[in-house]
Amino acid sequence: MKRLFMQEVATRDGFQNEKTFIETEDKIALINELSQCGYAKIEVTSFTSPKAIPALRDAEAVMAGIKREPGVEYTVLVPNVRGAERALGCGIDEANLVMSVSEPHNRSNLRMNREQSFAQLKDVVGVIGQGPVAVNVSLSTVFGCPMQGDVPVEDVLGWIERFAALGVRGVTLCDTTGMAYPSQVQALSRRVREQFPHLQVTLHFHNTRGMALANTLSALQAGINRFDASLGGLGGCPYAPGASGNVCMEDLVHMLDLMGYDTGMDIDRVLAASALLPGLIGHDTPSQILRAGKRLDLHPIPEHVHSLSKQVANADKERVQ
Amino acid sequence: MKRLFMQEVATRDGFQNEKTFIETEDKIALINELSQCGYAKIEVTSFTSPKAIPALRDAEAVMAGIKREPGVEYTVLVPNVRGAERALGCGIDEANLVMSVSEPHNRSNLRMNREQSFAQLKDVVGVIGQGPVAVNVSLSTVFGCPMQGDVPVEDVLGWIERFAALGVRGVTLCDTTGMAYPSQVQALSRRVREQFPHLQVTLHFHNTRGMALANTLSALQAGINRFDASLGGLGGCPYAPGASGNVCMEDLVHMLDLMGYDTGMDIDRVLAASALLPGLIGHDTPSQILRAGKRLDLHPIPEHVHSLSKQVANADKERVQ
Repeated sequence: MKRLFMQEVATRDGFQNEKTFIETEDKIALINELSQCGYAKIEVTSFTSPKAIPALRDAEAVMAGIKREPGVEYTVLVPNVRGAERALGCGIDEANLVMSVSEPHNRSNLRMNREQSFAQLKDVVGVIGQGPVAVNVSLSTVFGCPMQGDVPVEDVLGWIERFAALGVRGVTLCDTTGMAYPSQVQALSRRVREQFPHLQVTLHFHNTRGMALANTLSALQAGINRFDASLGGLGGCPYAPGASGNVCMEDLVHMLDLMGYDTGMDIDRVLAASALLPGLIGHDTPSQILRAGKRLDLHPIPEHVHSLSKQVANADKERVQ
Repeated sequence: MKRLFMQEVATRDGFQNEKTFIETEDKIALINELSQCGYAKIEVTSFTSPKAIPALRDAEAVMAGIKREPGVEYTVLVPNVRGAERALGCGIDEANLVMSVSEPHNRSNLRMNREQSFAQLKDVVGVIGQGPVAVNVSLSTVFGCPMQGDVPVEDVLGWIERFAALGVRGVTLCDTTGMAYPSQVQALSRRVREQFPHLQVTLHFHNTRGMALANTLSALQAGINRFDASLGGLGGCPYAPGASGNVCMEDLVHMLDLMGYDTGMDIDRVLAASALLPGLIGHDTPSQILRAGKRLDLHPIPEHVHSLSKQVANADKERVQ
């Protein structure tokens, strides 16, 4: 039973994309509940400028308010030195840095070129230093960019190499707009693991084109054991209105549990937490398991069937066997 | 490049579940369009009682009206001898028989016990005989039943054995309510292929719990090369309101094409056909690719990014490599 590590992104990547401001106390209560679900990491919030992302303007208050569960890492998005200083003041376990391996996507998303982003993130790594706080780099569009199209594998490996040289602990391969497909995922995952055996490697899929769980399967077959996902599938894709965004955490855990992996997760508790989301955000989520139930959440046998069944089921069964 | 065979079920399994009656001429026009898309089989309609399924009461007219494309097999659902006689009168290529391997599901769905279903279908096989018309049996709930729960593999193999003994050409393993999961799919597919090497084996997945494409991947790895799916994902699941039903044909073909399989399909033509569905059925479909576009349907670079890009993109690229 192979151990997998699940990382929740809804309270950062999800809430950041909601129009409704989630009250600080509601964020704290949800994160405290998530802390009991078995996650390896929870991306709590983002230390970006409150003006840029008002949805997460309460980053300090949230970090101060949550109850830390031993064994769970509390990570936050850190865009720059100012954000790093704020985050370090809150006692984070990990800083998650973000840039895109696609030039047009980095410019569109972060309003700088990639070299500017790298320089800024290098400074962040310098501020965080080699102390107890880990650094992870989430690389966007590694499986394709909605403007550039295919992204050369050598570009991806080149950027990982540069961050590895700075001493980061981990890298997240992000399928930012759902362009990854299974054979590609397997090939890139293998290359990254071979070339960077000491890096903690996370895969982050979007379900924009329905392939997130298939891609997860391919990543598992390439030895990946760490996955981002979002409670209820919160967090959208800006390039396709109405399309799905982040893969849904409960859909992912449900599949992995069925396959016999040890996710460490309490799926029922995750589902209960996910059921709270519509009340917080004001709309339904794309969670499939919340809608359909778990695989063995059975339905009652209709009465007309039940009475018929009793009469002949046994005789019938004997004949088949 | 491995050849796969795609089988469309929307005009039967999909339309059967729609509240709106699709006009006969619209059905014919859609099927004629689908005939140009590269399908191995199209399940055109069902020769059930027009009273039981009024949505498909025009089965004869549809079969008479469509233009047959050489190389495409036109299959129909046949529930009983009366239906077989009607279908044979229409010059079908294949009769598709249906029963459930779960006793409560068979009773609930077909209002008979499994032995009664088998006896009825055996008579159908007798009527069709060993002539030019092939027989396929679609076995429901082989990966689990929403009332019974897990269905023993030996039950599934036992029912296949009984139909194989009647001389049917093929069997479809149906995940009727989306209970299949990847490792289970792989194990059962392997068993069926080993034990029945001469049967044409089709896998039929529902995306109720998001796993349809992951399950397809597992089936491929077990050597399965034939898949049912439904244009636009039409065709629902009666046990979970709002949940997804049949896996969406264009989502499936999109993934398989990307992985380098030879599906024989013209994905653009499939998407164009799928785009006609909302006009016919009066509501949107769960198609992900119709919403998000194909993987490399790129988006324009925003102007502010574009002008910035020109200045530094080349220098930047050189530095990364």
